[in-house]
Amino acid sequence: MTPAVTWDDVCAARERIAPYAHRTPVLTSSAVDRLCRARVAFKCENFQKTGSFKFRGALNAVSSLAEEERARGVYAHSSGNHAQALALAAEVHGIPAHIVMPEDSSPTKVEATRDYGAHITFCPATHSGRWEVAERVGRETGAAFVHPHDDPRVIAGQGTAVAELIDDAGVPDMILAPVGGGGLLSGTLIAAKRLAPHALVIGCEPAGADDAYRSLQEGRRITDFTPHTIADGLRTPLGENTFAILRECVDRILLVSETEILDAMRMIWERMKIVIEPSSAVAVAPLLRGNAVAEGKRVGVILSGGNVDLSRFFAALEGRHVPSV
Amino acid sequence: MTPAVTWDDVCAARERIAPYAHRTPVLTSSAVDRLCRARVAFKCENFQKTGSFKFRGALNAVSSLAEEERARGVYAHSSGNHAQALALAAEVHGIPAHIVMPEDSSPTKVEATRDYGAHITFCPATHSGRWEVAERVGRETGAAFVHPHDDPRVIAGQGTAVAELIDDAGVPDMILAPVGGGGLLSGTLIAAKRLAPHALVIGCEPAGADDAYRSLQEGRRITDFTPHTIADGLRTPLGENTFAILRECVDRILLVSETEILDAMRMIWERMKIVIEPSSAVAVAPLLRGNAVAEGKRVGVILSGGNVDLSRFFAALEGRHVPSV
Repeated sequence: MTPAVTWDDVCAARERIAPYAHRTPVLTSSAVDRLCRARVAFKCENFQKTGSFKFRGALNAVSSLAEEERARGVYAHSSGNHAQALALAAEVHGIPAHIVMPEDSSPTKVEATRDYGAHITFCPATHSGRWEVAERVGRETGAAFVHPHDDPRVIAGQGTAVAELIDDAGVPDMILAPVGGGGLLSGTLIAAKRLAPHALVIGCEPAGADDAYRSLQEGRRITDFTPHTIADGLRTPLGENTFAILRECVDRILLVSETEILDAMRMIWERMKIVIEPSSAVAVAPLLRGNAVAEGKRVGVILSGGNVDLSRFFAALEGRHVPSV
Repeated sequence: MTPAVTWDDVCAARERIAPYAHRTPVLTSSAVDRLCRARVAFKCENFQKTGSFKFRGALNAVSSLAEEERARGVYAHSSGNHAQALALAAEVHGIPAHIVMPEDSSPTKVEATRDYGAHITFCPATHSGRWEVAERVGRETGAAFVHPHDDPRVIAGQGTAVAELIDDAGVPDMILAPVGGGGLLSGTLIAAKRLAPHALVIGCEPAGADDAYRSLQEGRRITDFTPHTIADGLRTPLGENTFAILRECVDRILLVSETEILDAMRMIWERMKIVIEPSSAVAVAPLLRGNAVAEGKRVGVILSGGNVDLSRFFAALEGRHVPSV
């Protein structure tokens, strides 16, 4: 079988996205290293434009459009980071983006997507509702569909993050990335197998949305499940392409609990003073376990994004008693 | 009158602290620039060791001790960032630190200070209680006192932050720093007057703790007031040295409201994905005003620290309903 995505695709993606995407920093922390008993290099995609790695894939997809496709633009359905990523990718290329968002999307995310100039159509907050409305939008606009994680151009784009990480921090012994739909992990696998062939590449998944773990175990793609996790970016099933790439390449999937996710997220906020979203913390959580999977190793971690709803925190601060001294 | 701190002192501080302190990054954000209608370079002291610029001053003070003083160590009273800063500064130099902390200090800060190996003595949470206990600790230990903001060695150390900012980001038109006890602003003034003599240097102060503003207006140091502000690092009065330096050098003090502080803090967290404490946000707030004080200008902002109590936020997250999709 011809692989859906190759190393050459990742290289081409790097060139395409370079003019518009941030080359995000790689951060380290001696405090975190002590806690994890490892040397950890964090690739900070929370600092990427639109606040997540999703911009890489969306941008590569838009940059790859044929000339005749550009005028009709792109479309997708997403309530989350892919919506903003595709909207901005279309904006920088001066083409239209049509985004289908569930009625119950957070107003902040709708606003941000609209700010990037996207046309928004709301849909029922159900799986079938999303697809029906998305198909209608596609038919009416003639726009090109950009799947959030199974589009090979998207997968190739996501692979550019780990390529930069290895360029900047050297070849690690182990690479951790979160897995939801599998786009980031698939891209990471394609690039890492070339740039760090001896590194263990581990997908990290919430136990409350363990479809990738079970899909690999059962040898068939599990798509019918009800996720229960705070990691809102990781509630979707694998796609066909990402499932095939994971089956072929991934070394291990580790499951983490909700408590582990929150503990890891808090540890990063407190020790590194950066804002990461729960989905990012999923790839940090295994490092904090007693049976340190990474002890003494050089570890690369992809911090996938930093889009967190801060309303509650600031509401609490505004209402708080301000003590006098 | 001989100035308490000179440019040469700042240069000497840079050399002393270089082996131990982080050279923190300078970050920029096109989203923030659009909102502020200016080109803003942020000096990220939230990434400094112990989470704030205070480590610079404390480290310079400890590094400046005479050989015969070292064995008896240092002491201070602080419920906040100076406690951790002095504790770590003493630890890296292998000397004892005695820290007097109010009984009602946050357990996190007490723990962090103890983790750096400091001897902690609790005191009543009153101004006089602090000083009484601190004087006793000083008498009993023979340790050297390091004032959190009025010690000339501390002021010189704090001046190193803006020196690095100008080295890395070029000479700005305007520099904003928060003012509480005035150590950071004084050091910033000494360094900026040499490195960026034409830059306007502005102290930013909570309206709920406007003693620096009023002290300069009235020409006498106001020390008797009851602060009401969330910016817990800025609730203290100016010292004698810092008052003298501000009188001589500062271009302006701008007052900001509590709402402006929270809005600025949230803007930085959301747009830049970094954790800053309310005291840092005080120096960002003036940039978000309609009557943009900085419009079109190159602005340097000292983000003083990132030590925020995240308990409420994570308590809210843990209790929150985790939706299924």
